[in-house]
Amino acid sequence: MSIISLLSDFGHKDPYVAEMKAVILSVNPQVRFVDITHEITKFCIPMGAYTLASAAPFFPLNTVHVAVVDPGVGTNRRPIIVHTQRNLYVGPDNGLLILAANKEKITKVYVIDNPKYMLATVSNTFHGRDIFAPVAAHLSKGVKPCEFGSEINDYVCPKFTTAHFKDAELVGEVLHVDDFGNVISNISVHDLEKLGLQLGCSVRVELGDNGFNVPFGSAYGEVACGDAVLLVGGGDFVEVSVNQGNASKLFNENVGDTFCLSLVKC
Amino acid sequence: MSIISLLSDFGHKDPYVAEMKAVILSVNPQVRFVDITHEITKFCIPMGAYTLASAAPFFPLNTVHVAVVDPGVGTNRRPIIVHTQRNLYVGPDNGLLILAANKEKITKVYVIDNPKYMLATVSNTFHGRDIFAPVAAHLSKGVKPCEFGSEINDYVCPKFTTAHFKDAELVGEVLHVDDFGNVISNISVHDLEKLGLQLGCSVRVELGDNGFNVPFGSAYGEVACGDAVLLVGGGDFVEVSVNQGNASKLFNENVGDTFCLSLVKC
Amino acid sequence: MSIISLLSDFGHKDPYVAEMKAVILSVNPQVRFVDITHEITKFCIPMGAYTLASAAPFFPLNTVHVAVVDPGVGTNRRPIIVHTQRNLYVGPDNGLLILAANKEKITKVYVIDNPKYMLATVSNTFHGRDIFAPVAAHLSKGVKPCEFGSEINDYVCPKFTTAHFKDAELVGEVLHVDDFGNVISNISVHDLEKLGLQLGCSVRVELGDNGFNVPFGSAYGEVACGDAVLLVGGGDFVEVSVNQGNASKLFNENVGDTFCLSLVKC
Repeated sequence: MSIISLLSDFGHKDPYVAEMKAVILSVNPQVRFVDITHEITKFCIPMGAYTLASAAPFFPLNTVHVAVVDPGVGTNRRPIIVHTQRNLYVGPDNGLLILAANKEKITKVYVIDNPKYMLATVSNTFHGRDIFAPVAAHLSKGVKPCEFGSEINDYVCPKFTTAHFKDAELVGEVLHVDDFGNVISNISVHDLEKLGLQLGCSVRVELGDNGFNVPFGSAYGEVACGDAVLLVGGGDFVEVSVNQGNASKLFNENVGDTFCLSLVKC
Repeated sequence: MSIISLLSDFGHKDPYVAEMKAVILSVNPQVRFVDITHEITKFCIPMGAYTLASAAPFFPLNTVHVAVVDPGVGTNRRPIIVHTQRNLYVGPDNGLLILAANKEKITKVYVIDNPKYMLATVSNTFHGRDIFAPVAAHLSKGVKPCEFGSEINDYVCPKFTTAHFKDAELVGEVLHVDDFGNVISNISVHDLEKLGLQLGCSVRVELGDNGFNVPFGSAYGEVACGDAVLLVGGGDFVEVSVNQGNASKLFNENVGDTFCLSLVKC
Repeated sequence: MSIISLLSDFGHKDPYVAEMKAVILSVNPQVRFVDITHEITKFCIPMGAYTLASAAPFFPLNTVHVAVVDPGVGTNRRPIIVHTQRNLYVGPDNGLLILAANKEKITKVYVIDNPKYMLATVSNTFHGRDIFAPVAAHLSKGVKPCEFGSEINDYVCPKFTTAHFKDAELVGEVLHVDDFGNVISNISVHDLEKLGLQLGCSVRVELGDNGFNVPFGSAYGEVACGDAVLLVGGGDFVEVSVNQGNASKLFNENVGDTFCLSLVKC
């Protein structure tokens, strides 16, 4: 029994995800699927990378993760396999896989060029179905990564910003806005400790042009309905949330906007 | 082989559902998943309760249903297991599980407080992943419900309105508007019999400020395209529908609005 | 181990798909599900037929495909099983199944009228759950198609338009607009060859009232971001796409609009 996870920007309207699963089941009927999401913003590699890196740590060892956010499909961007100490990743060489893979320590990266493990006809528009799906299926059956092509070292490494201090202010940016409207920053729980923030303190949050003071809490329901709270979310990043509301709409915040914190009073 | 169903208000954009499934598969790789829905209106416990109660009767015996519509996560609301004569339910103690469970006769309810069956680190923002998922996985492997915590009797019982007669008028309310725009009431087929309504009769429907006469039929396609019909839907509740149209938009109806019926002529 | 695919216009908000799966698992707990899509435009049989026909060829032999786009549910439209040389199809007799089935050569078609294989109570509003789901489950367990009812020959055959030449112009129509905004025509790769079009040629595309010249390429990323390209998509149909953009919005094109091609220069 092996597990294949799938992540893409395909949406749910078209048969594209099903075609990938059908190809995989044709090779390995025993595989189990888990859809991470297919609603990555179209062509948005950073959002795909963030989402994959959030989910991957919860999967069992030896999961094969297939991720397809692939604006360069059919051009000279390479299809790759990333082998880490925990898992295998299959997808385009555009940085999508590397944030997640780096957390698990990359052992080797291979370009996929052995046609034996691709569909007989490979389109230039849908490598998810024609290359990544059958490769993932064969990996899930135990074919060794080195069978698919040669090792490479020059794979694309995305740059992800990290938070830093500017005087007493902790300067980060918005990493993700989730479906609840929680505004998730790239500020980690370790960064917070350096700020000296403790539960119950009041903290100033500057989001783009908006500034406001909120309590630092530990649960959404600790503040009144409609009130904002700063807390550490399920992915260990600092987020601003509104209890039973939508912080993203309230503060008009989007991915990439600045997200700065400073201590008001404890 | 055991089945775990999942219901939530998480949407499909984020990796939250996948994280729950990954945690479950780490404990029980043999489990089968059925997603009931993840598009419950955010924080809307009554809609979650209605949807869970609609689907649950069709599942095999001994299904473990995990439901997470949980605005109180991380506060003093308790995580619970509800054991019925057919199935097991896992989720927050906010009424979400009880409408479905009552239909199957509740045998016992347990608070979950044994950390042995939770993730090593439990966040205050995502008990779906950190508590409910691993608990469901262990239940699906045969761990007895009493192993997870003590029995309780003071669990939250939601109040659901039932239809009643006011003179010759049957007075109910809108329970759900489905994705087709069907306006589903809390009026049951048994209530209808008391009204003396038979197939082919004309019936007056008062929805909020709108009143109109429609035929009482048995299938959407019995009336012309764009025409309204009153019928008993797949969940045994009375609904107003528009053949190949959207009754909710036509009549501007929402959940909680009044839904009254009176006989016009047979 | 057998596979059941599901396609419908049910959306993801309601428990309808889950009720079908729960019914199927009650009959055959070993079955594997693949959701093709549940976001077919409501009541749109041609879109359902196109989508099913796109995905079906990628599935293993002996898959049972259940498809429900069924505005005539509960009327005199018949429930049917279509047996092809590769697979089995279950759904309403309204043309939905036939485009896919014809590609695999239909061997026999049966009306479903044996109540032994339906739910004990059959509603007039949800045959997906009450008839198609249990029938598919029994088929997946090896019950012969002829056990479900009598053979018929007068099943509904939908008319699908094909492209044709008008002087030097290849005249087709828009078959589908996918979630990326790719405008997919009913013009096949074989039609293109007759036009004498080769990679790198410039081609005039007339979409409804819009006309414009684009290159004929082989991958989205061959043109600059925001530029249009004509290419053969993953389903072997000709499509107009915008690199990292949305062709459907740019050209304001919808399903059924004309899609004409003529050679400009090679």
